[in-house]
Amino acid sequence: MVIVMHEGATDAQIQNVIDRLVAAGFNVHRSTGESHTVLGAVGVHRDFDHRDFELLDGVREVMRITQPFKLASRQFRPEGTVVDLGRGVRIGGNDVVVAAGPCSVESREQIHAVAESVAKAGAKILRAGAFKPRTSPYAFQGLGEKGLQLMREAADKFGLCTVSEVMDPSQIRMMLGYVDMFQVGARNMQNYHLLRALGELQKPVLLKRGMSATMEELLLSAEYILAGGNYNVVLCERGIRTFETYTRNTFDIAAIPVIKKLSHLPMMADPSHGTGRRDKVAPMARAAVAAGADGLLIEVHNDPDHALSDGAQSLFPEQFAQLMGELRIIAPAIGRRMA
Amino acid sequence: MVIVMHEGATDAQIQNVIDRLVAAGFNVHRSTGESHTVLGAVGVHRDFDHRDFELLDGVREVMRITQPFKLASRQFRPEGTVVDLGRGVRIGGNDVVVAAGPCSVESREQIHAVAESVAKAGAKILRAGAFKPRTSPYAFQGLGEKGLQLMREAADKFGLCTVSEVMDPSQIRMMLGYVDMFQVGARNMQNYHLLRALGELQKPVLLKRGMSATMEELLLSAEYILAGGNYNVVLCERGIRTFETYTRNTFDIAAIPVIKKLSHLPMMADPSHGTGRRDKVAPMARAAVAAGADGLLIEVHNDPDHALSDGAQSLFPEQFAQLMGELRIIAPAIGRRMA
Amino acid sequence: MVIVMHEGATDAQIQNVIDRLVAAGFNVHRSTGESHTVLGAVGVHRDFDHRDFELLDGVREVMRITQPFKLASRQFRPEGTVVDLGRGVRIGGNDVVVAAGPCSVESREQIHAVAESVAKAGAKILRAGAFKPRTSPYAFQGLGEKGLQLMREAADKFGLCTVSEVMDPSQIRMMLGYVDMFQVGARNMQNYHLLRALGELQKPVLLKRGMSATMEELLLSAEYILAGGNYNVVLCERGIRTFETYTRNTFDIAAIPVIKKLSHLPMMADPSHGTGRRDKVAPMARAAVAAGADGLLIEVHNDPDHALSDGAQSLFPEQFAQLMGELRIIAPAIGRRMA
Amino acid sequence: MVIVMHEGATDAQIQNVIDRLVAAGFNVHRSTGESHTVLGAVGVHRDFDHRDFELLDGVREVMRITQPFKLASRQFRPEGTVVDLGRGVRIGGNDVVVAAGPCSVESREQIHAVAESVAKAGAKILRAGAFKPRTSPYAFQGLGEKGLQLMREAADKFGLCTVSEVMDPSQIRMMLGYVDMFQVGARNMQNYHLLRALGELQKPVLLKRGMSATMEELLLSAEYILAGGNYNVVLCERGIRTFETYTRNTFDIAAIPVIKKLSHLPMMADPSHGTGRRDKVAPMARAAVAAGADGLLIEVHNDPDHALSDGAQSLFPEQFAQLMGELRIIAPAIGRRMA
Repeated sequence: MVIVMHEGATDAQIQNVIDRLVAAGFNVHRSTGESHTVLGAVGVHRDFDHRDFELLDGVREVMRITQPFKLASRQFRPEGTVVDLGRGVRIGGNDVVVAAGPCSVESREQIHAVAESVAKAGAKILRAGAFKPRTSPYAFQGLGEKGLQLMREAADKFGLCTVSEVMDPSQIRMMLGYVDMFQVGARNMQNYHLLRALGELQKPVLLKRGMSATMEELLLSAEYILAGGNYNVVLCERGIRTFETYTRNTFDIAAIPVIKKLSHLPMMADPSHGTGRRDKVAPMARAAVAAGADGLLIEVHNDPDHALSDGAQSLFPEQFAQLMGELRIIAPAIGRRMA
Repeated sequence: MVIVMHEGATDAQIQNVIDRLVAAGFNVHRSTGESHTVLGAVGVHRDFDHRDFELLDGVREVMRITQPFKLASRQFRPEGTVVDLGRGVRIGGNDVVVAAGPCSVESREQIHAVAESVAKAGAKILRAGAFKPRTSPYAFQGLGEKGLQLMREAADKFGLCTVSEVMDPSQIRMMLGYVDMFQVGARNMQNYHLLRALGELQKPVLLKRGMSATMEELLLSAEYILAGGNYNVVLCERGIRTFETYTRNTFDIAAIPVIKKLSHLPMMADPSHGTGRRDKVAPMARAAVAAGADGLLIEVHNDPDHALSDGAQSLFPEQFAQLMGELRIIAPAIGRRMA
Repeated sequence: MVIVMHEGATDAQIQNVIDRLVAAGFNVHRSTGESHTVLGAVGVHRDFDHRDFELLDGVREVMRITQPFKLASRQFRPEGTVVDLGRGVRIGGNDVVVAAGPCSVESREQIHAVAESVAKAGAKILRAGAFKPRTSPYAFQGLGEKGLQLMREAADKFGLCTVSEVMDPSQIRMMLGYVDMFQVGARNMQNYHLLRALGELQKPVLLKRGMSATMEELLLSAEYILAGGNYNVVLCERGIRTFETYTRNTFDIAAIPVIKKLSHLPMMADPSHGTGRRDKVAPMARAAVAAGADGLLIEVHNDPDHALSDGAQSLFPEQFAQLMGELRIIAPAIGRRMA
Repeated sequence: MVIVMHEGATDAQIQNVIDRLVAAGFNVHRSTGESHTVLGAVGVHRDFDHRDFELLDGVREVMRITQPFKLASRQFRPEGTVVDLGRGVRIGGNDVVVAAGPCSVESREQIHAVAESVAKAGAKILRAGAFKPRTSPYAFQGLGEKGLQLMREAADKFGLCTVSEVMDPSQIRMMLGYVDMFQVGARNMQNYHLLRALGELQKPVLLKRGMSATMEELLLSAEYILAGGNYNVVLCERGIRTFETYTRNTFDIAAIPVIKKLSHLPMMADPSHGTGRRDKVAPMARAAVAAGADGLLIEVHNDPDHALSDGAQSLFPEQFAQLMGELRIIAPAIGRRMA
């Protein structure tokens, strides 16, 4: 922590700040400049509210130094993490991995039809929801365990891994047999009960950025899972909330190279939620791969016009196949290839 | 729903949209103007994704009409709701009610000292946390049930009601004996498992606005609780996330008169979290009452400099007493009085 | 400037940073802690891009210390500035001053009618636009100089001062005879040609916060005027752009106490633009005074339903009079009085 | 305009709204549904404040239909606009055009060195500032006309077109001989005096999106130029302001496909300002091309470490050459090629 004193701070004020820092267990270095005195406080205090010092007399500014996340930082594992989902699907290596599928499992016919088409086009993971967090209590809430069974069955038939959203710790045990990766949705990014419960497993977790979460907060939420001992965490950009309303969210593609520099964890991108409109999904998927994403989550539906949820942002199977062709041209531009 | 066609939309395109609306169960009214054709679709479809129609050929814009919340709307109960916490404390009537207390219960001495001082200054509710949702896994996480016991004891001694945050449905049963009102924190505003569980009770619930939640989303989350049969819901503004970083959040005081017009539910304000800095709490508390808030949540600590959490935004007891005096002058300006 | 090195930074990397700092004219203090080395760079370099150092090898974070504004800072004039408009109207003292009037001057009848009613209710300044910055080129753009003449005439008749918006340096000379204070609108807050031109006068300037401007940027724009020698600057909060769309802008009332602490300049508030809706103007006006504003800008129109611009956010004269009565109760709560 | 009445609106209230619409010159269509009455108002009223109707008794919601921009809309010129800068440089066709150069012209040596290297790597336009809008009055403000002369000289020598920022109408005449395209910076996007002056020319204008401007507002500002008769307008995304502070701005890449659908004008992207950090420029440049941008603006400096402004976001010449190579692989993925 660095504390900058006001130009006119008195010696008594400076000494008071030093005394409190020492009392809190810090080592203090004092630099006296022409106009400002700067105090450097060194020590290990992760649970520390730097605002306490902002309020002391004579203090102008307080700046944290210690990064609040540790296990999630790039320094902890400079070579990067590769998360293995089984069936040869590895996220975070040279291959760019695509998870595709409908917003929700609706029926055996639907999930099989989608699984077949996305597998054929090159997806490696089947994504589909069984428990849906809906803003309105009157909206379709998903098929529950039955949906998970259908998804697993379709994935096995077409050689795919699976990912699906978990909403509450009470669902974890039941879901273990159906999913190869748990998804934590944007609304639950700071549901710490859920994060802690997932930290006790070894099963991979896909953690989506909350729609008003900073990149630092995303990494702190990952830290909850890592701190429990589960290092198989994949992060995912899915759009943030801004003043612009033409798109559902503002897809923050710059988060991809930023997070990859700050952290060793793989970083995927979800252009379907990131834009909310079918005709914008392909441009944003291409952009995410061009920016260095380790994988994509894309909503595909065999009949989007009759989807029970999010049809408007689901690609038709033929659109998805065309997109995969475009991505196979783009990935090599940065030395990668589509899985 | 109103659908506006493009200037050059063909008859076939218009007919296609009409056919789909009818198939979806809507009654359709067509208005043909000089440049645009407008289709009005009337019917009751709360689970409907209007974006599906945005993507049809010839469509320029689609506008929802039906308000997605119903039980929470002012029309449902034009006279307004008054939530009764017992001990004569009623939120939503003519009196402005203040809940005050420390961020976290830390010890018997601490919570008794704070309870005594805030009761003396005019607070009616003791607020204190026992389970703390912290951004970092390394920060103080609260005393748990022991903290709730200490809070209840102190509240009873000084004639106060209690409110404390619930983070997971599994905590509800245990907490029932300790709190007069459950608090749902900003991070959990869209934790639908939790909202549904609280909807099954009759105990009052204080629902805080998420930091990136629109007012409509706040009311939709309230709708989850109301739809379960629990009408004792109090809303609370606590600041939203914006580009401005000098204050921890941007305290959206205009939400107070807006929500009071849209909904019959009482609306409180939390200037402590809304600003994050002690020296801004009093001005924002005064502003909230001047704008028509039904109550305030204010962090007060007997020794903020040594608080285990959020000391920087906690008032000293004497600051709180002075603030209450100022509020007693302001409330009558709009025909109200401090409880 | 403080530079924090990465945990594993090498001696060569640290020495390289030090060398560059010295070359740039800084004095450097080095603190070596358990895990991090921190470099404090002291010196006066206002034109300095701290990002240059962020990119050097081994650097983790760079933090500015020197506040980029100087003449606008509270330290420069701790006792605060009072801006005198003549006719006994002084902004920044104990009195809370209200400027009221229509969005645009439309006719002699209109501006006289409004001037009379607001003067009677207690306003001290007549506000009205003659040059209107409109988002659409097809909207009403104001009466120009003719409007200024009518405003001046009405103000003189009812003993009011005047304020009106200047949009371009070429208008300044002509406007000098008509206005007692120039208004710089939110869209021009960073029009540096205009700010520099106003800095060469002694006439008061009302500088409105841009809708995406931080408080620091507002003060830097004020610095442009002060640096030219004109110290008669009044700042004004008028709402910022956020994700919330129910209100036209989010009225950032906390900016009032924050700016008053950071700067010696008076701070007004404009609840009409801050909310954009007539029924929210009074609550926000009360809130702004309760939070410590030095004055208010309020749109009032004798016939809002037929106003040529912004009628929806203009108060009826009787609403304005009632509001002034409420403010006379609120101001004394913080030891002030309505002018 | 579509007006939705409240469920309980009375006939008198509905009739009152209809009367006012008719008085304002609209044709009105009334649709009576089960719960809501909807009024469709048809007519051509660009200067109309729909909020006026929001305040009438019984009205629940008012929705605009007529797009406020006309000349800028895709319907006006469905085939798209190609802006010709001379020397065979055409923006908006199949070729993706790159403008590159330093933030500011600093000296003859500098601008010649940069011009040579960017021309060799494939740039077609030299970009460099002579008048710099700086947030602080104490920062380097540019070389003025001397800088423009040096830029023109260097561009001519290496066969490039030129673009540079104009800040005030008074600079236009002088700049005409030096630039092939005027740039309007983000801070001036709503400087209507400047936009109108540029509308009277035929010289191309590069209009950058303001940092808090919606896409609709960007198109309305373009409309100011088009309405004057100058159709040679190129738009540019350069990042918007959001709560995320790790990057200088949030680069809204989705604006590229959105604007290209809404408007016939070409759309470029500026990843240098969009991210503010050199190491993020290349990923975002690739992403913009993958998303369909018609061109890029990229800051390149022969010696970024000693640049007088924005060195931190300037590429080294060799980084720029490598990026151009990557873009040549990506552009064909969507059927385009680098100019």
